[in-house]
Order: sequence, then structure tokens, then C-alpha cells
Amino acid sequence: MNFQHSEKSIALQKQLKRFIAEHIHPIQEEVQAFHLDPSNAWKKWPGLYGLKEKAKGEGLWNLFLPKPYGGLSPGLTNLEYAPLAEIMGRIPWSSEVFNCSAPDTGNMEVLAKYGNQQQQETWLRPLMNGTIRSTFLMTEPEVASSDATNIETAIVADGDDYVIMGRKWWASGAMDPHCRIAIVMGKTDFNAPRHVQQSMVLVPLDTPGLKIERPLSVFGYNDSPEGHAEIVLDKVRVPKENLLVGEGKGFEIAQGRLGPGRVHHCMRLIGMAQHALELMSQRAVERSPFGRSLDTFSSIRQEIARSACEIEQTRLLVLSAADKMDRVGNKEAKDLIAMIKIVAPNMALKVIDRAIQIMGGMGVSGDTPLAYFYASARTLRLADGPDEVHLSQLGKSTIKKYIKT
Amino acid sequence: MNFQHSEKSIALQKQLKRFIAEHIHPIQEEVQAFHLDPSNAWKKWPGLYGLKEKAKGEGLWNLFLPKPYGGLSPGLTNLEYAPLAEIMGRIPWSSEVFNCSAPDTGNMEVLAKYGNQQQQETWLRPLMNGTIRSTFLMTEPEVASSDATNIETAIVADGDDYVIMGRKWWASGAMDPHCRIAIVMGKTDFNAPRHVQQSMVLVPLDTPGLKIERPLSVFGYNDSPEGHAEIVLDKVRVPKENLLVGEGKGFEIAQGRLGPGRVHHCMRLIGMAQHALELMSQRAVERSPFGRSLDTFSSIRQEIARSACEIEQTRLLVLSAADKMDRVGNKEAKDLIAMIKIVAPNMALKVIDRAIQIMGGMGVSGDTPLAYFYASARTLRLADGPDEVHLSQLGKSTIKKYIKT
Amino acid sequence: MNFQHSEKSIALQKQLKRFIAEHIHPIQEEVQAFHLDPSNAWKKWPGLYGLKEKAKGEGLWNLFLPKPYGGLSPGLTNLEYAPLAEIMGRIPWSSEVFNCSAPDTGNMEVLAKYGNQQQQETWLRPLMNGTIRSTFLMTEPEVASSDATNIETAIVADGDDYVIMGRKWWASGAMDPHCRIAIVMGKTDFNAPRHVQQSMVLVPLDTPGLKIERPLSVFGYNDSPEGHAEIVLDKVRVPKENLLVGEGKGFEIAQGRLGPGRVHHCMRLIGMAQHALELMSQRAVERSPFGRSLDTFSSIRQEIARSACEIEQTRLLVLSAADKMDRVGNKEAKDLIAMIKIVAPNMALKVIDRAIQIMGGMGVSGDTPLAYFYASARTLRLADGPDEVHLSQLGKSTIKKYIKT
Amino acid sequence: MNFQHSEKSIALQKQLKRFIAEHIHPIQEEVQAFHLDPSNAWKKWPGLYGLKEKAKGEGLWNLFLPKPYGGLSPGLTNLEYAPLAEIMGRIPWSSEVFNCSAPDTGNMEVLAKYGNQQQQETWLRPLMNGTIRSTFLMTEPEVASSDATNIETAIVADGDDYVIMGRKWWASGAMDPHCRIAIVMGKTDFNAPRHVQQSMVLVPLDTPGLKIERPLSVFGYNDSPEGHAEIVLDKVRVPKENLLVGEGKGFEIAQGRLGPGRVHHCMRLIGMAQHALELMSQRAVERSPFGRSLDTFSSIRQEIARSACEIEQTRLLVLSAADKMDRVGNKEAKDLIAMIKIVAPNMALKVIDRAIQIMGGMGVSGDTPLAYFYASARTLRLADGPDEVHLSQLGKSTIKKYIKT
Repeated sequence: MNFQHSEKSIALQKQLKRFIAEHIHPIQEEVQAFHLDPSNAWKKWPGLYGLKEKAKGEGLWNLFLPKPYGGLSPGLTNLEYAPLAEIMGRIPWSSEVFNCSAPDTGNMEVLAKYGNQQQQETWLRPLMNGTIRSTFLMTEPEVASSDATNIETAIVADGDDYVIMGRKWWASGAMDPHCRIAIVMGKTDFNAPRHVQQSMVLVPLDTPGLKIERPLSVFGYNDSPEGHAEIVLDKVRVPKENLLVGEGKGFEIAQGRLGPGRVHHCMRLIGMAQHALELMSQRAVERSPFGRSLDTFSSIRQEIARSACEIEQTRLLVLSAADKMDRVGNKEAKDLIAMIKIVAPNMALKVIDRAIQIMGGMGVSGDTPLAYFYASARTLRLADGPDEVHLSQLGKSTIKKYIKT
Repeated sequence: MNFQHSEKSIALQKQLKRFIAEHIHPIQEEVQAFHLDPSNAWKKWPGLYGLKEKAKGEGLWNLFLPKPYGGLSPGLTNLEYAPLAEIMGRIPWSSEVFNCSAPDTGNMEVLAKYGNQQQQETWLRPLMNGTIRSTFLMTEPEVASSDATNIETAIVADGDDYVIMGRKWWASGAMDPHCRIAIVMGKTDFNAPRHVQQSMVLVPLDTPGLKIERPLSVFGYNDSPEGHAEIVLDKVRVPKENLLVGEGKGFEIAQGRLGPGRVHHCMRLIGMAQHALELMSQRAVERSPFGRSLDTFSSIRQEIARSACEIEQTRLLVLSAADKMDRVGNKEAKDLIAMIKIVAPNMALKVIDRAIQIMGGMGVSGDTPLAYFYASARTLRLADGPDEVHLSQLGKSTIKKYIKT
Repeated sequence: MNFQHSEKSIALQKQLKRFIAEHIHPIQEEVQAFHLDPSNAWKKWPGLYGLKEKAKGEGLWNLFLPKPYGGLSPGLTNLEYAPLAEIMGRIPWSSEVFNCSAPDTGNMEVLAKYGNQQQQETWLRPLMNGTIRSTFLMTEPEVASSDATNIETAIVADGDDYVIMGRKWWASGAMDPHCRIAIVMGKTDFNAPRHVQQSMVLVPLDTPGLKIERPLSVFGYNDSPEGHAEIVLDKVRVPKENLLVGEGKGFEIAQGRLGPGRVHHCMRLIGMAQHALELMSQRAVERSPFGRSLDTFSSIRQEIARSACEIEQTRLLVLSAADKMDRVGNKEAKDLIAMIKIVAPNMALKVIDRAIQIMGGMGVSGDTPLAYFYASARTLRLADGPDEVHLSQLGKSTIKKYIKT
Repeated sequence: MNFQHSEKSIALQKQLKRFIAEHIHPIQEEVQAFHLDPSNAWKKWPGLYGLKEKAKGEGLWNLFLPKPYGGLSPGLTNLEYAPLAEIMGRIPWSSEVFNCSAPDTGNMEVLAKYGNQQQQETWLRPLMNGTIRSTFLMTEPEVASSDATNIETAIVADGDDYVIMGRKWWASGAMDPHCRIAIVMGKTDFNAPRHVQQSMVLVPLDTPGLKIERPLSVFGYNDSPEGHAEIVLDKVRVPKENLLVGEGKGFEIAQGRLGPGRVHHCMRLIGMAQHALELMSQRAVERSPFGRSLDTFSSIRQEIARSACEIEQTRLLVLSAADKMDRVGNKEAKDLIAMIKIVAPNMALKVIDRAIQIMGGMGVSGDTPLAYFYASARTLRLADGPDEVHLSQLGKSTIKKYIKT
């Protein structure tokens, strides 16, 4: 047992921090102003692609992908990637600079693991090159999608094609002007056993019948330029080659997709919480109500101390989950993955909320990243399965582990 | 002791509910769509003034003002007004229909109590008629405004005028196209004892030197059309007649303004929480993950039961505070007023958060009022003094009450 | 709506407080020392009966019973009794001085409401006179007794007798040397519909076959002299006249017994919490770690302020439940009764725990009543149905109230 | 970074578990019954010394001491000892079997680190041999001892002796019939700078003037046979050789004593929490209220899942603190040590409380170890400094770390 990062990992962390300090910090306000201007809705900040090239040139690119694929990734383990995701999480839009942003990361993993050569050539390569973006169509507004077996989108075989009918929402990234491809989860067989009814197909975003109905907001934010879309699939026709792996494999692929994605989300949440902790610590020495600096109030010290404890505990839990995934695989690590999915968003929300409170009115405004952090972290108590689903599975699994037989 | 509302109060509640059911529910979606359209930013929904006339015609007008003023208010007690504020709180923008929206309510109270005849004629009458709106300039970005003695805006006597220099923010309502008047808190004497340095002056919004720099956002909401403004006062010159009461009276007026305003805010929060409770109860019977209706899950029942308990407890506390204010005055009721200011926003946040969770992704979007409720309630842990200030005062006062002498 | 106690109620509160100040405060340490001495286990403090006579002489007797019975009770409403129960709750053993202690109160209510003349003459009269004590045998160690239909004790008709077989525990009061009578819940018909299988019979404590196996402890306390017993009923034979009301009425009687009992418990809990609040307020001005008096620390003030808020909210909720029971009956008030049963013990535990923390090591010792308060309050999250049962019923009932039909 | 214990550590864990399964589990009930019998108060269970010899024979002895001392300890690192302390924590009295129980462990560390040869020969050797026990006299009833500089016990030089005057309490272990030696903290110079006024002296328990006034209880437990004593030191005279290190070194020794002791306490707390988790998991499948097994209720699964998360997070935090202490020393690890001292008792209390609730009435009784666990864990929010002191230090240190300079 050893709680220190490897030298390789520490070197990468330093490199990433330096890149962010040099190239991202100086332009943060410009980027925020660009996206706050309603006339720039759903447009990308023009400087982004230059930055991406710079990052790619430094090898800070596709850091998330455990296996090097065509030389476009350094092939880091989950444990090596985790602290890098934390660093990127401090500035949410920075992940894209390093081609490490959701949902592309999860989609690339799916294509790398389950895509055939043709599918990889057509979609994985440009995704890994960062020239296009992607979306994932799973959740549906009409059913309790926390239970994936409830999904009602139909994928009907018709000659050499599949015809897709359904309505999806929370298609993150679909509003991005560079979004080209959707992975769509639906049912090819409504009469099969519950976990083999589902399949996944690749649907180019310009396929006739696929219509983006509207962007959804999250606590008033539209998350431009990526956004979260509600999408109708009205007799969307794709060739059968667009199927991933095989009919009935959708549920299995969905499960496999989630492990690393959860580690990424959780590490980014830790980055947000850590950033919030630093902001409130800094604020505490700057303000003096009632004749004393805030940092001398015992209640303020307690809030900050509790936050430090909660962040460190969660960081260790996520790192231990990453390590277990690396050692024994996602399946064996499923209880730990459930744990981090439960713990990290709730921890981040608590810490960010305390920081908002210490900031005063500024905390809920756009003058700090805190309100946006809060909205993002809140969403992650719902996305990829609400807390309740993970608690229930973990509870069941824990009971099973300890009952006397 | 008696926990039932009077017949008069019950009749008013029924009348208000009927008005809302007939005239507001049917147009809610239209109003929301109007304000979501960025091209309508800072414009009022055109139908609003017709609705206001209708409400005024029914006597559902200025319900908040304890004393009838020129026949423009029914003169309800705080206890009678409280359940009406709860009903309006369910649909945040509806308060304006009944001329009961902040910050006008507090400003009208100040003018009714501290304004001279001339000031009342010029500003109170049109405010009570609902033809203009107002704002309140207290909080400053540069100092810890939770301690009002920190305020740095200068009000300098210069011949027959005052000249005002300062920077304010969180000027709610200032973006409203009908906003005409600001009550400005500043210091007329920086060397006087701490609580008599402050004065309040009336500053018409079109006075030269008063510049609205920008609207602030709350989470991702801009709260159009009222908004929250950051305002610069650069050598703003007003005649000395615009002073309220007298120099050095600013702190005292500020204290007097806060009591009823807190009851109003708290009752509206209870309306939000109650609305959230009803939404989650309804959702619980509509969704069935894992083969069972949500309302049969013990954890869901617990969330709903706890919410019902917390709402009812807080409602009783706020009503008891209103009753005490009516009986013995705001000053004697100050501990109870501190209690509700602490309890109500935190309670509402808990209940709304549970409702968001039960709603799933829809809960954070604009498809329910919950995310907006959350942002509003969160702000009220900071506005009118952060939790910490009220906790500290109440704690001090409680200790004093129980120590042996 | 009116939040002030009636003059009659205020006068009674004063009288009770004066009695306690004059006759109970001076001997508290003596009584505690008596009961801490292991050689006095299961003995009553000799001075108790003198005190009881004094209280009876002042009319401070059987205050809990809503209907005067044979001139032995003033016949107070629940709303009038509530603040008296709060006062007694501050010193747990004091309830018995006024013949207001559980489980006798609930048992007397059962006998007053469901007992026939003979049963009342034999058992109710001496109970109301305070010459004997009683116990209630409901919970069983072998089944989940939170669901009363699980109970397995058999009451079998045999000629003119019933023969009882079963094992009970948490028979509070059964260790008291004056305990003479048990009300026993069991099943007379295991094949009847679930809620009419149960019956209640009166079993004198000296009936052959009734064996007290052992006293149970609560967090190390044995609660001498009343205690909580585990009791075996081995072919206990009683005449059929000992049946209450009729066969199959046990569940109904149990339900009826619980309403007022819950108000009593909850008001006593508020008394404990209030006492804890006063102790911690007093302590805060007595201690000075790190050069400052504890009461100047913002965190201490917050703990005290939150406690004051939580106590006041719960007090109002319990009073409103008492009022509703008085006005419309226990059945109509069932949601409010569930609310207080959920809210009061949890509130008391939070407040008492904060007081323990502020007291330091002394808080967990026997030098303050706090550790004992904690143990008592913790038990009340389980007794008369665990939180979960009440949350589930209240949740279900709340959902039903708000779903659209 | 690596989250797996070393082979050496795993082997020791197995050996210890096997010893407990073979030699301690079978006699647990006998030991508990012995100590519950009031006539055995302050007596040791006669079989204990046989067990200790057996453990010593197997090398499961003085596992806590990082440096081997005279062949009486295997010299484990903190990281190696931590999981062993967790295992012992499951059965509180078992620590003594392995000569690993507080306060002896801390006292032995002090003697090993600060004692001279004579002091080690006289006191450390028999302590390490397990033939005598010891106590630590620090906390005083009259002052806020959370601030050690408040201590008022005087250690006055008088010729070749020191004369000690003072009153101490919470002297754990002092009631043990084998307790022979006390380490006493007092002031040798009331006028020196605040942190060099204190000194520590060794005081044999039979020194004239040292009087055990009474045992203190924790909730209702007296913790026989070790107990917690209040002790008066009335002109207690010891030779100057009994001073540890030098005058004015008391505060420094106290600080050094606390690091490892906190890791031990925290790991034992994790053992308690883990045991509680297993008990509630087992109970969940055994009980069926309302026709369904408890383990199928979503609320029960959530309680168990949350407990599993909280235990694992805390375990990792404590292990990382142990590792840091091993690598860079207690001083450098002080923030992590503060974190675990804050986090572990609070976590354990939450988990144990949930287990109590799931157990029902049995949970508060002596029929499970839970109520006793609760009382012990509650004490550890106060012992070795209350939460507030650690939160304050950690908060201060965290702010310092993040402010911009």
C-alpha cells in the first residue's frame, strides 16, 4: 500500500498544470465573455482549435484512453489519468482542449472496444483527432430511464437497414456545431429477455428524420456550445453496418461504457470541489464583517476544514476505484464504482455550496465559477443513473457480502 | 392558542386561489416562453398590466401593507397576509400581479412609514398604483455587506444637494423597464458612531451619474425583466428633500424595513416548497423503474414524508412570527424573525432538492419550476443578511436569555 | 389563529413550575444518588410517595387524562396538557410525582376508554390513585414488532379462561416493585383477517406462568426502578372477564392508545431539548478555551441558534397536533401525530448531542442529565413504532393527498 | 500509488483473525456476563491473563509499537498496524489481549521515546510485558481542557522532589486493579511562555496524596474494569527523577503522544463501524415487517450502501495518514491526523446509529455491542481534543495553504 503517485504521473500533472497556467488561465475571461453573449449561442469560441493543436503537439491528448490507439493517446491507466482529470475539472471547458471531454470520451471508448474496423475508421479516428464531436442518445423523456430496460425507442430491421423511431433527451454535445455522430440505444427485440432487447447503432447527425427539437437548460444555463438536446427520431434509416457488435448487445455495451466515465466525472468533480475550497480559503482572508477577518471565525474555519476532509476522502476513494479497475477490471470493481458515483457528486455539492455561502452574493452570480459548478455537480446526481439506483445496487451487493450462509 | 385561520383569512385565500386558477394558470406557459426568448430580455410581458388591473379591481391589491393607505390596500395583518404570500410564492412572477412583489413591498413600507407627504405623493402613490417600480441600493461589491456598517457609499452634503459616490450591486428590479426610483443607503458621516453614520436618500433612476453597469445572473438565470443590477453612482446629485427622515437614520430604517419583508420571503418560500412537494408526489405515481411504481419505494415515501414534516413545521414558525409582529411589534419579535430567516430558505432548498431528484433530469431543466425555485431559495440564504449573521444574533440572544444571573 | 396559551393553561404551568422548584429541585441529587447505588436496584426512592401525596393535594394529578374520571383528574385538553408535559420532561422521573408517567398514562387511557366497570374498579382506580403501577406487553423479541400483525403470542380460550403463551420484551415499568398489572396483546385467532386477530387481556403480574426473565438495558442504563423487562408467558391462565372489549379488538385498542401517548412523549422530549439548550447556553459563558469565552465563538452561537430554531418549530408542531386531536379527534389528526412522532425524537437527539459536545467530557458522564436524555430520546425513535413505519404511512398518505385524480 | 496491503500485513491480519476466532469469539458471552454482574465491578475477568500469554506466545503482542523494544514487539509501521487495530476494534476488550489497549499504548510510546533508562526499566518493561497497566492524567474538571494551556495542576519543585497539587478526571484505566503508574501533566512554571509551562511526571498510583475519588460513567456504562476516574492530587510528592525529559517539555510530549494514538483510535472505530455494517446487513435478511424482507426495502438498502461508502472512505483516509506518518513523520502529517480525528468518530456514530435503528429495540440494549460502540465512539468526539479544536486547527492550516501570497 502506497499513497504516492508514480513519477510518471507526477510529471504529467506538472506538464498539464503548466499548460493550463500558460495557455488557458490568460484567456479564461475572454472565453466566458464570448459564451455569455447570447449572439454567440451554439457557436464555438474561435480560438479553441488553435489551443487543441497546441495540446496535441505536447502529447496532452486523449489522456483518458487506457490503450494507445494509433499513436493518438499516451495510453495511461485509470490511476494515472485520474489526477489529470481532477486538474481539468477545475475549469470545465478545458477538457475539450485535451480531447478529454464527455460524452466523446465514453463514445470513443465504446468505438475503440466494440467498433469494427470500418466504424473505427469512419468515426473513431476523427473523434480522436478532435475534428468532430459526438453525442449519446440513451435517456427518454417518456419513461423512467434510470432503469435502462424501460427504454422504448424502436430499432426495426427493414431489409439492409434499421429504421429508428423514438424520442430522446439529455443528448449532451448534440448542439455543438461540430457534432457529427450519435450512438443511439434502442430496442431491436421487445420480446427478448429484459437485458438483451437493446442494441446500439451509429446514426450520423445529418440523417433524415433525426431532428433536434430544442436545447434543454440546467439551472438556467444552456451549456453552449455543447448543450443538451431533446431529439426526435422519426423513421431514421441507417444501414445495418451501423450496428455495434450485434443485436441484443446494447445493455452490455452501456454497462461497459459507464465504469471509466464515472471515474472521469468523479475526478472532475473533485477538481471543482478543490477549486471551490481554494476560492473560499482566499475569500476568508479578504473580508471582514463585524471588525474581524472572516478566517478568524470558528464557523468559517469549520466549513473549510470539513471541506478539506471530505475532498481528501473522496479523492482517495476515486483513486482506489481507478486502481482496482486497472488491476482487476471494471466488473470486479463495480461496488467501488457505485460508491464513487454516489459519493463524489454529493461531496462536491456540499463543498461548492459552502463556498457559495462564504462568497456571499457573488457566489450565486457569474463572477465566480461556483454557481455553474453547482449546476453541473447537481446534474451528476442524476446522469448515468440517479443516486438511488447506485445506492440500491450497492446496498444489495453489500448485504449479500455479509449475510451468514 | 388556536391553529385555524380566521374566516376572513380563509375567504381571502379562496378568492386569491380562484383568481390564480382562472387568470394565471392558463397563461403560465405563454409567459414563460416570452421570457425565455432572448429577444425579449428586459421587456415586460405585454399582458401583465391587464392582469394587474383585474386584480386591483377585485381588491387583491397591495395585500402586504398592514395599514390601509389611501384606500389602495385592504390593510391586512401579517398573519392574514402570510397564507396569501404562500399562495403567490407557488408562481414567483404572480406576486407582481397583486402589487406584492419585492423589492417594491419593502420600499413602499419604508415610504409609508418614513416618507414625508411630498415623498409619498411623488413615489409611494404611483408605486401603490402599480404604475412604476423601484429598487433598493444597499449591498456593495467591495465590502462585506453582511455587516451594514461596512458600507462605503458616500452621501456628501453640498449646498442644497447631496452628492453620492459609490458602487452597489444586487439592485433587484433595477433592470425593469418601469423602474423609476431607487432608495440608496450610504454614509453621511463617516466619523459618527457606527450605527448613525448611514442615511437613505431617494434617487430617481434617470438622475445623471447613476449608471447601470450590468445585470447579474443567479445560477444561469438573469431574472428578466426585473433583474439584479450592478450600479455605479458617480457624483449623483439629488436635492436634500430626497433624504428620508434625517441624516443618520439609515441604519434604523434598514432594520425596520426587514421584518415584514422576511415574513413575505419566508411565506413565498413555503409556497415554493409546498409546490415542490405536490410535484414530487404526483411524479411518484407516474414513474415505474424496475417494475414498481416509485410511490411504493420506502425511500421515496420517506423523502416525501420528511418534506411534509419540514414544510408544516416551518409554516407554523412563520405564522407564529407574523402573529407576534402583529401583537407586540417587529422589535419584540426579532428572535422569531431571525429564526424564520434561517429556517425557511434552508427548508425550501432541502424540499426542492428532493423534488428535483425524484423528477430526474427534468428536475434540473426548465420543464418544471424546480430549478428556478432552487436558485431563488439559494439566494435567500444570502439576501437580507446571510444565515451566519442571523444565527450569530439569535445565538447571542438565546445565550443571554438562559444564562444564570 | 392565535399562538398564546389560554390563561387557564398559563396558570397551571406556573403552578407546576413552582411545585417543581420548591419540592423537586432541592432533592434531585439525593434521588439520583439513591438510584446510582447498585444496592438500591429496583427499589423506589422512599420519599416518592410523600411527594405524590403533596402533588395530589394540589390538584397536580392525572393531568394527562382529557376526561375527569371520578374527580381524580382536572380533565385537561391535550393542548392544555402539552406544556405541562414539557415542564415535567425536563426531569424525567418527575412525571411519576404527578401520576403522569408512561406506560401508566396510556394504560389508564385504555382502561378508561375500553375497560368495563369491574375492570375499572379493580385496576383503573388504584392506578389513578397512584398506589399501583402497570406495564404493557406488546413487543416480542422473535418478530419484527414494528408491524403489530406479526405478533405471535397466543391467547387461547379454554373453558372460562384464556391461556396465554408467548415471549415479550421492552415491558417498561415491569420491574417497579409496585407494578401489579399488565395489559397483554396477543392473538385469539390466527386465521382471522390481519387486523382482527389480536386481543388484549389484563394479566395480574403475580399470575402463575408470568415470569420476568431479565431487565434490559438502554445504553448501559437499567432505568431502575421501573426498568424494561423481558417476560415469558408460559401457560398463563386468566379468566375471560379479563378481556378488554372483545376478541379481535386488540389492534383497534392499540391504535387508539397511541395518539395521546405520542403527544406526551413528544412534549417531554421538547422539555429535554429545552433543558439541554439552557445547559449549553450556561456552559458557553463559563468556559474559555484559547483565551476567549465559548459564547463568543461563531460556531457555538450557531449550534445554540439552530437548537433554538429546531425546538420552537417542533413545539409548535406538537401543539398543533394536540389542538387538532382536541378539535377533530385522533383519527383525523393521524398525519400530524405521525409527523410529531418522526420529528420530536430526532430533533431532541440533535439538540442534546450538541449540548453534550459543548459540555465536553462532562456531557457523556452522569454529572449532567444529557447522556441519559440522549439514551431516552434514542429509544423513542424505536418505541411505539420506528421512524420508518411512521415515515412510510405519512409518505403514503401525503402522496394520496396531492396526486391528481 | 497502490491500494493493496503488503504480503506481510495480510499474513498478520490472517493470523490475528484466526486467533480471535479461535480464542476470543467462543468466550465473548462469558466475559460480557462477568462484567455485567455488579458484584464483579472493577475486577478483571480471571481468564484474561491466560489469553494474554497465549497471544504473547504467538507474537501477537505490542503490535502498535513502531520500533521493536527489547524483542517485545514485532516493530510494525503504522500502516502495517492499522488493519490490525481495525480487527481488534470489532471487540473492544480484545485489544488488551494483545497488549494494545489505550491508554497503555500511548503511555508506552511516551516512555519509549522520552523515558530515560531507569524510567524505562521500572515502568516500560512491565507495561510491555503486560503485567501492569497505566493511566494518563491530563484533563481537569475545572478548566476548558480542550486548550491544554489552561491546565492548572501545579508541579512544584521542593528540594529533590516535586510536589503535585491538582484535580484530574477522565483518567481512563485508573480503576483497573493492575494499574500502577500515572503520567501526570501539570505546570512547573506558571509564568513561562504558554507552551513551555507544562511538564510531565511519573506518579506511582500508590503515592500518598493521590486519591481516586470516583469512577465516571459514559452514558450508563462504567467501563469496568478499567473505568474513568476522577482523581485528586493533594501534595503528592515524587522524586525529581520522575520527571520526563525536562521541565517545560510537557506540551511537546503531549503533542508527540497524540499522533499514533489517534490512528489507533480511528482504526478501532472503523472496526466498530464495519462490525455494525455486518450486523445490520445480517439483520436485514432476518426480519420481515409488512410482508417483505427488510433487505428489499429501498430505504434499508440506502442506509447500508451509505454506510459502506462512508466506512471505505474513512478507512482509506486513516491508512493514508498512517502511511504519511511512516514516511515523513507525525509533524508533517498533522493535517491528515487532524482529518482522521474529525472524520472517524463522526462516521462511526452515523453507521452505528443506522445499525441500531435497523436492529430495533435490541439495538439500544446489551444484546448487541452497538449501544456500547455508540457510547465509545461518542466519547471520541471529545477525548484527545474535541472536534472543534481539530476543525479549527485544520481550517486555519488549510486557509494558509491556499491564500495567495
